[in-house]
Amino acid sequence: MGDFASAGPAPAEDLELLRSYIEQCTNWGRWGEDDEIGAVNLIDADAICRAAALVKAGRTVSLTMPYDNTGPQDGSLRSNPQLVTTATGLDYLAGTQDFLPGGGTSKGFGYSDDIVIMANQAGTQWDSLSHIFWDGKMYNGRSAAESTSAGSRSNGIENYAGRIVTRGVLVDLPQLRGGAALEPGYAVSVAHLEEFLAAHSLAVQPGDALVLRTGFLGERRGRWGDYAGGPAPGLSLHTAPWLHRQGVAAIAADTWGVEVRPNEIGVYQPLHVVSLVHTGIAFGEMFDLDALAADCAADGVYEFMFVASPLPLTGAAGAPVSAVAIK
Amino acid sequence: MGDFASAGPAPAEDLELLRSYIEQCTNWGRWGEDDEIGAVNLIDADAICRAAALVKAGRTVSLTMPYDNTGPQDGSLRSNPQLVTTATGLDYLAGTQDFLPGGGTSKGFGYSDDIVIMANQAGTQWDSLSHIFWDGKMYNGRSAAESTSAGSRSNGIENYAGRIVTRGVLVDLPQLRGGAALEPGYAVSVAHLEEFLAAHSLAVQPGDALVLRTGFLGERRGRWGDYAGGPAPGLSLHTAPWLHRQGVAAIAADTWGVEVRPNEIGVYQPLHVVSLVHTGIAFGEMFDLDALAADCAADGVYEFMFVASPLPLTGAAGAPVSAVAIK
Amino acid sequence: MGDFASAGPAPAEDLELLRSYIEQCTNWGRWGEDDEIGAVNLIDADAICRAAALVKAGRTVSLTMPYDNTGPQDGSLRSNPQLVTTATGLDYLAGTQDFLPGGGTSKGFGYSDDIVIMANQAGTQWDSLSHIFWDGKMYNGRSAAESTSAGSRSNGIENYAGRIVTRGVLVDLPQLRGGAALEPGYAVSVAHLEEFLAAHSLAVQPGDALVLRTGFLGERRGRWGDYAGGPAPGLSLHTAPWLHRQGVAAIAADTWGVEVRPNEIGVYQPLHVVSLVHTGIAFGEMFDLDALAADCAADGVYEFMFVASPLPLTGAAGAPVSAVAIK
Amino acid sequence: MGDFASAGPAPAEDLELLRSYIEQCTNWGRWGEDDEIGAVNLIDADAICRAAALVKAGRTVSLTMPYDNTGPQDGSLRSNPQLVTTATGLDYLAGTQDFLPGGGTSKGFGYSDDIVIMANQAGTQWDSLSHIFWDGKMYNGRSAAESTSAGSRSNGIENYAGRIVTRGVLVDLPQLRGGAALEPGYAVSVAHLEEFLAAHSLAVQPGDALVLRTGFLGERRGRWGDYAGGPAPGLSLHTAPWLHRQGVAAIAADTWGVEVRPNEIGVYQPLHVVSLVHTGIAFGEMFDLDALAADCAADGVYEFMFVASPLPLTGAAGAPVSAVAIK
Repeated sequence: MGDFASAGPAPAEDLELLRSYIEQCTNWGRWGEDDEIGAVNLIDADAICRAAALVKAGRTVSLTMPYDNTGPQDGSLRSNPQLVTTATGLDYLAGTQDFLPGGGTSKGFGYSDDIVIMANQAGTQWDSLSHIFWDGKMYNGRSAAESTSAGSRSNGIENYAGRIVTRGVLVDLPQLRGGAALEPGYAVSVAHLEEFLAAHSLAVQPGDALVLRTGFLGERRGRWGDYAGGPAPGLSLHTAPWLHRQGVAAIAADTWGVEVRPNEIGVYQPLHVVSLVHTGIAFGEMFDLDALAADCAADGVYEFMFVASPLPLTGAAGAPVSAVAIK
Repeated sequence: MGDFASAGPAPAEDLELLRSYIEQCTNWGRWGEDDEIGAVNLIDADAICRAAALVKAGRTVSLTMPYDNTGPQDGSLRSNPQLVTTATGLDYLAGTQDFLPGGGTSKGFGYSDDIVIMANQAGTQWDSLSHIFWDGKMYNGRSAAESTSAGSRSNGIENYAGRIVTRGVLVDLPQLRGGAALEPGYAVSVAHLEEFLAAHSLAVQPGDALVLRTGFLGERRGRWGDYAGGPAPGLSLHTAPWLHRQGVAAIAADTWGVEVRPNEIGVYQPLHVVSLVHTGIAFGEMFDLDALAADCAADGVYEFMFVASPLPLTGAAGAPVSAVAIK
Repeated sequence: MGDFASAGPAPAEDLELLRSYIEQCTNWGRWGEDDEIGAVNLIDADAICRAAALVKAGRTVSLTMPYDNTGPQDGSLRSNPQLVTTATGLDYLAGTQDFLPGGGTSKGFGYSDDIVIMANQAGTQWDSLSHIFWDGKMYNGRSAAESTSAGSRSNGIENYAGRIVTRGVLVDLPQLRGGAALEPGYAVSVAHLEEFLAAHSLAVQPGDALVLRTGFLGERRGRWGDYAGGPAPGLSLHTAPWLHRQGVAAIAADTWGVEVRPNEIGVYQPLHVVSLVHTGIAFGEMFDLDALAADCAADGVYEFMFVASPLPLTGAAGAPVSAVAIK
Repeated sequence: MGDFASAGPAPAEDLELLRSYIEQCTNWGRWGEDDEIGAVNLIDADAICRAAALVKAGRTVSLTMPYDNTGPQDGSLRSNPQLVTTATGLDYLAGTQDFLPGGGTSKGFGYSDDIVIMANQAGTQWDSLSHIFWDGKMYNGRSAAESTSAGSRSNGIENYAGRIVTRGVLVDLPQLRGGAALEPGYAVSVAHLEEFLAAHSLAVQPGDALVLRTGFLGERRGRWGDYAGGPAPGLSLHTAPWLHRQGVAAIAADTWGVEVRPNEIGVYQPLHVVSLVHTGIAFGEMFDLDALAADCAADGVYEFMFVASPLPLTGAAGAPVSAVAIK
């Protein structure tokens, strides 16, 4: 199979495989027809308590890249976040705030203020369940027509607010190969995942967040090139049944698209089609996992409390998130 | 004293009082001259472990308002967050994505995408330590001139990323008065805080987040009027020494400015001047605490794990945050 | 008939009238099936030369309101233009540009720079022929489906660039009634237009721009209220056949929507439906005509060269314009 | 002299030369201390009438590039204009506008709407007289401190609204060399300008706009590379006294910065320093002059009416403009 140069229809055997995976892995209807959070429902009270019980050292690691113009976007599909200031310390020092009652240099008090213009998926972010469509539908069988210029009427990212609080398990793939980052096109298989987990005597439990480090973000940091949108290492399509079986609630990877690119069959991002659209797993992209990997290597502990609630941007297809691993 | 109509200098006795509070409460230099997070330093390993130990029920409550055009801003100082879509389900259904290799309705795959334009302090948000200046300086003695059109070179909001993870204590003031929201101009005193804490057998510990509900946000929800910027209930200036003494790391309130307005002396937002600029406490504003209050009233537990890491917008004066209380 | 409170279908007789006007006034196909500028085609070489021949005094009047936060929008449908600075003189003076080779205060050279975020129809602006649809179609029979999240594939505002250069004729309606602005709901009829033209011995010629002053903009300046979107004086639907017959290329009015509101039949903005969608006349809104009216009253000359080329924003539904009357 | 790699101070002889040009060419105070338009004052009634008298053929040529994401910016200093839609024909067809009284597919009426986010100097644009500073000051001796986060209190681009209406003279330099575009670094001298003008029996008159084509924009169209900000052909610093003597009101060139880059002395953009800051000439950049050049080559007429009123963005350092040449 491999990738595809043409825009033609996918080969019949690719579509057959995809349909088979969809049939095995679908969660449509599982949590009711009104459900808008999919596999995140697997994060139950036990999962949350289990996560909190992992906090022993009292240490936190941020998993979010800075949002600024040094980010990975090249402006073709998306632009980097742009901070624009509307009031600065220099304004204050120059006396522009002196008209304020009780404010301005003449009275001591001053302030700064700013605005951000950002593509919601410019940096570290969660996809919402309205981000991807297959055969005219999004998660839980809703029509793609729910997604309009006013945002999506359902499955928007706001549904995840306060919900992504669970146990995280870091699978640090470069560790299996002497620290080297995975190459673009490298497909991570179930065997890879299980090899790592076994080596660390870990098992993924229902409701867990699978935190997947390929090393690719660190490899490209500061010289991004086509990092955001080009060929990348990532999960193989063939992990979809395993992800479903394990009850993975969320995946957070250090690549722009979680899954391997070029794709393994003649359909664009087929793992999104199976695991996001049908299984309803939360896909997290461009998580910065280098500091976490170093932390885990130092103490040998690859599980932690994972708190990653996205900004509740009503109706959005994705949202930035300030994610934290807590040990 | 009361409020002030003129833009003239503050009365001498007001300034003397303010200077006295600043002297008592300053943390400048306490964590070194390079420090950029102030009282958040008080969140140490013990504080984090103490917070996690409060997670017993496996329940989460989001403390963040939706970011959308139903928000509290009226456009005079700041505008509500604006979501603008760059690709929708309708585009996909109409065939605009058919040119994608492996995508488009003809091949099954489609996507939506969007951008947000938002004032960083439009809704639930943390102030950074570069947001407020006094006598030409921000926290830790840095010049206001560090804050330029490129953002602030120091004390930016990105310093808080991954750091605001601690025990939260809800002080639900309406409970002291039969559930009624506090009125604009109502100054919350140390006596009020201690009355509530004593009633619930709670004590604030160093590194804690003080989560302060006035009921004002709920009172104005959906008919905001001058909620964001006008008169408001809030902390009295005279709580500053207590906040410092208790070792409060962060305050999250359901008002636009944490402190009472109109202010109690002839200086604009004097509690910001003492407790943010000098003590270095993180100020969180427009936190939506109604669901949390209901949850705490139901189980009688007013302490919880509080995870509220802001978006790391490099150099920003503030940032939105998807805050979570975990029990 | 009058306005309508319900969202129900229009009365049958209203639709019949509308269809009759559409039939009389349509220009679909008149300039070929590829045409994207409609009645602006009537501005031929003669029209341009006639316009230039009106320049005798060597005087110009700007017809565009300032684009800034004092504008007429209230943020419900659209927001006022927001200028955000990315480099200021204060930055330069503070030394932030000193790193530039040959720049910065240390070397003398500095600069300021800025960005604008604006609703294209926030202030003085032209509608494009892709702005309004009727029965699923826009001007010249194109499908509304041409207008997607990437902008409109046809009839976009860029087609007007360099084209709106013609004779303008000011019809200053308040002059007919002692200077008083027309009230919201006041429908301007053919009789009103002809009375004014006759009084000034003027005739509208094919390709002309009809510049229509109701006085409503001046009446609301600085205390806008519902100026942008609410009830307004304006052209009656029943002027549509006259506009078509006269060969009016463009109409520029001092109201937000050219036509009277509430509308005269149970269809929203029916004059847009007939004269913009079918006749293909360029509709210009929120033109500031007060200075022009004063100028014309002073010299008694109500015709002039009218140059009003919109910004060529590719695919946009409208665009701001810096319009000039030249005498 | 030549260019300079270091950020060090300019050589003394360069500064001396610059000061000599400034002294010869300054117009500070010439039109009163309140003046904010500089050499545009030279466009008097005669100049406007002279311009209109050039309209003989009844033909217009747009001189403005499309504003869209195919533009010349690479995102490092500025980004290309971004059109974002808030309502599309697809939304209307999908029924999202059916709630409107009298609107929606069910009732026939629909609309599209959009917003633009643009760096004011992203494409074809005028610099304002508050865009460039020298020795702490802008045109007419005002302090650079007038330019704050709220925009500039004086010399903003809004002052040009309705004012740039004059005779334009095209100097088409590639014509002197067989049609080839000038190379980056090519300095256009007075001799070049006079050679072209003499060949066409033209003289520049006070108040004229000098429209300067280097061919560089056409050379880079669609494969912009470092077009916007990199080395470029352009006017030599040494043309400054000639520009002043001739009474040039405005210069519109097809490069990003009018003047040659790298610069000829150790000061950044020294022609801006002399001719914009001190002479007060309007600088227009990235004008698309290829169609105009073809038009002039065809009829042999290199003078025309030039109407190029920028958007009046209050306090802005520059603004887009829909410029037109009329013959």
